[in-house]
Amino acid sequence: MPTTRRDFVKNVSVASAGLLMTTPSNLFAALPAKSKVRLGIIGTGFRGEGHLALALRRADVEIAAICDVDDRMLARAKNIIDKSGKPMPKVFTGSNYAYRDLLATKDLDGVIIATPWEWHAPMILEALSAGIKYVATEVILGITLQDHWDVVKAAEANKAHVMMLENVCYRRDVLAVLNMVRQGMFGEILHLQGGYQHDLRGVKFNGGASPDNGTVPGAEFGDKAFSEAHWRTNHSLHRNGDLYPTHGVGPVAMMVDINRGNRFMSLSSFSTKTRGLHNYIVKEGGESHPNAKVRFKLGDIVTTQIHCTNGETILLQHDTNNPRPYSLGFRVQGTNGLWMDVANSIYVEGVSKDDEWDSADQWLKKYDHPLWQRWSKETEGAGHGGMDFFVLHGFVEAIKRGTNTPMNVYDAATWSAITPLSEASIEAGFQTVEFPDFTSGQWMYRKNDFALGDEF
Amino acid sequence: MPTTRRDFVKNVSVASAGLLMTTPSNLFAALPAKSKVRLGIIGTGFRGEGHLALALRRADVEIAAICDVDDRMLARAKNIIDKSGKPMPKVFTGSNYAYRDLLATKDLDGVIIATPWEWHAPMILEALSAGIKYVATEVILGITLQDHWDVVKAAEANKAHVMMLENVCYRRDVLAVLNMVRQGMFGEILHLQGGYQHDLRGVKFNGGASPDNGTVPGAEFGDKAFSEAHWRTNHSLHRNGDLYPTHGVGPVAMMVDINRGNRFMSLSSFSTKTRGLHNYIVKEGGESHPNAKVRFKLGDIVTTQIHCTNGETILLQHDTNNPRPYSLGFRVQGTNGLWMDVANSIYVEGVSKDDEWDSADQWLKKYDHPLWQRWSKETEGAGHGGMDFFVLHGFVEAIKRGTNTPMNVYDAATWSAITPLSEASIEAGFQTVEFPDFTSGQWMYRKNDFALGDEF
Repeated sequence: MPTTRRDFVKNVSVASAGLLMTTPSNLFAALPAKSKVRLGIIGTGFRGEGHLALALRRADVEIAAICDVDDRMLARAKNIIDKSGKPMPKVFTGSNYAYRDLLATKDLDGVIIATPWEWHAPMILEALSAGIKYVATEVILGITLQDHWDVVKAAEANKAHVMMLENVCYRRDVLAVLNMVRQGMFGEILHLQGGYQHDLRGVKFNGGASPDNGTVPGAEFGDKAFSEAHWRTNHSLHRNGDLYPTHGVGPVAMMVDINRGNRFMSLSSFSTKTRGLHNYIVKEGGESHPNAKVRFKLGDIVTTQIHCTNGETILLQHDTNNPRPYSLGFRVQGTNGLWMDVANSIYVEGVSKDDEWDSADQWLKKYDHPLWQRWSKETEGAGHGGMDFFVLHGFVEAIKRGTNTPMNVYDAATWSAITPLSEASIEAGFQTVEFPDFTSGQWMYRKNDFALGDEF
Repeated sequence: MPTTRRDFVKNVSVASAGLLMTTPSNLFAALPAKSKVRLGIIGTGFRGEGHLALALRRADVEIAAICDVDDRMLARAKNIIDKSGKPMPKVFTGSNYAYRDLLATKDLDGVIIATPWEWHAPMILEALSAGIKYVATEVILGITLQDHWDVVKAAEANKAHVMMLENVCYRRDVLAVLNMVRQGMFGEILHLQGGYQHDLRGVKFNGGASPDNGTVPGAEFGDKAFSEAHWRTNHSLHRNGDLYPTHGVGPVAMMVDINRGNRFMSLSSFSTKTRGLHNYIVKEGGESHPNAKVRFKLGDIVTTQIHCTNGETILLQHDTNNPRPYSLGFRVQGTNGLWMDVANSIYVEGVSKDDEWDSADQWLKKYDHPLWQRWSKETEGAGHGGMDFFVLHGFVEAIKRGTNTPMNVYDAATWSAITPLSEASIEAGFQTVEFPDFTSGQWMYRKNDFALGDEF
């Protein structure tokens, strides 16, 4: 889309001494400010209903429309709305494409997409085509690399904002460490680690839903299974890569200014053999269960390395098929010290005792981020330890002000594209692949404006 | 050397149903048993004198010859020998090639090499040429990939044993975890991690030696510096790779039977920018110190991935240029649980509480390895927490029995070759490179015989 790209650059850039500058404040065309925003929610499964409940708590949000294909989940959503005392929105259902009617709802300021992964990119693209200027999507952004390019180019063409609701960027310890990074406590940053190390066997398989809408244990996935096992497991069946990179990479990407003066240059992924999902099926369903014959493609542990153009390395681990305690495995290391979340430990030269870890607690308290200091009361009851408050808050506040969302379409594409790139790397025999630049060079001019203050 | 190779295979293999089998017990020609072994030690620096002191404690060892080029270190060695009450061995010195005279000493059963890295391969090769059948070398084996091949082929041609003194293979927790692996506690092994995360700034730089032979702090390396700073730092100046992989990889390689039914297939290394050594020079010597202008090539953190043919992945980290607490960063993970040394934690499904780490202490005690149970008294006072006892013990016992050393020339070459391979990977833009098979296919037939019992 060369014409579109040129138009975009012309509209958003400032000619300065012959240099094209795109600063975050004018990333896309400014939109009118609002005191109240009208939102639509596509997908009111367990994840979507969390966003719905938080949105209903806000005086500055009107839920104008919701959409789902599952009657049970819609009934739960309506019940949540009833209890809130807010007016019942338009409800769309009846087909996989009912969301198109939602997108045609008049005067929607924004839409939140919380559907299975493979629906994110098509729904975002249609929302943008429908003229919606703020689109929030649950992780991840798309399936193929082309999906990611399509969404970026469509956002630019429509001068619209696409925000991926990567909540871990707002985890309290993560934001405190970002604060420490910005104050130079770790010196110049060298190496970062993160990941998704989470035993998902009970999420990938169940025996359907019980009458109270919870899941019952079992060895089923796909049609016979409920909730995420209904669709998510299919990705483990067909794909080998880091299927869920953004919880690990988003927080650390922000610490080294990715797409804001820095960028990912190359990536390689290595994967182990595939054992855990089969073992779990046999454990839950026995050797003779039909699913015991299924051959899954996802390596049990996928480890990815990324090199950044400013000389940092990032290590990501995806580890979801076997028993283990939950850990996102963060490590943030610079020339003056490091943080590791697995041991809740920090070392800062000249402050910590020589060669001894400090408990991170005192540090995280001291460097608590202004966002948490201001909004901790509002985070109470919000999902995932309060992090979910911030993603919705950031999305809503950006709409109200007519400004950029705190995380933008380039973040979403860059973090989420790790999945297809890791698949390509593994498929080629763990070869190193080039990382695309979704900003088309604008990363050199943009500044980091994420979580700078206490507003959103 | 096709002829040599054929001879070797003919000598060591057993024709069995048309299949060439090399079992560990006849890896090389059997040698006569002895009740006392005559050892030479090349290099009596701080490392060599540790081996010397331990050897002097043994009734089954006669130190027949020592060699060094540094009078101060030789004087210390002679003092240690004097105090032991054992007879003074022949002492060789006066040139960098004085070790050739040591190698010509009559009836040497074995030689221990504890010299700067670049001397290891040439000294091993000359020891083998001199007819010595047991050669122990400190880590690492050689500098170039060719060095590693040369040593392997020379050991085969001479039917001699080359053992790298990789002491971490005997660390008490490492051996307990090996014990757990072999008893299936972690299930089928999937992923392993290790490394060398050790702030070496005070080792890589000093201001020379004080009168009592210790080092004084400073910003010098090379000619003006003492001990390891005299030679080791030069590798950080000229090379970018994992310069010291064997402490991390040796222990985990043994857990997944590398060269014993499994092998490394491919490797990639990523490195960060280079900051720490320059920063240290400025801190110690000021901005105007001549060494502040030196450009070091070693990336501060080098992270390496290896894929094994049986489907495991291994992650290694080399991190020696910046402040941080010491950690070899072990992680051993299978289908049933994992151990991580950084947090001293173990998780085993069905035993540990759901989603909660156990302190490793109870597990490590329960699975304490027979070697430590039998020899813990003898390890008292031995360097590196007692590990140093076991490498010398293993070397000496193998000579006495005329059998294989517990770690062999293929282990040494495979583990140590990670350095030149990681350099090649980084130099090629973090590309993945093939891992050579130093066993030339014999890994398919060999069995793991490391630390099977309580003898050595």
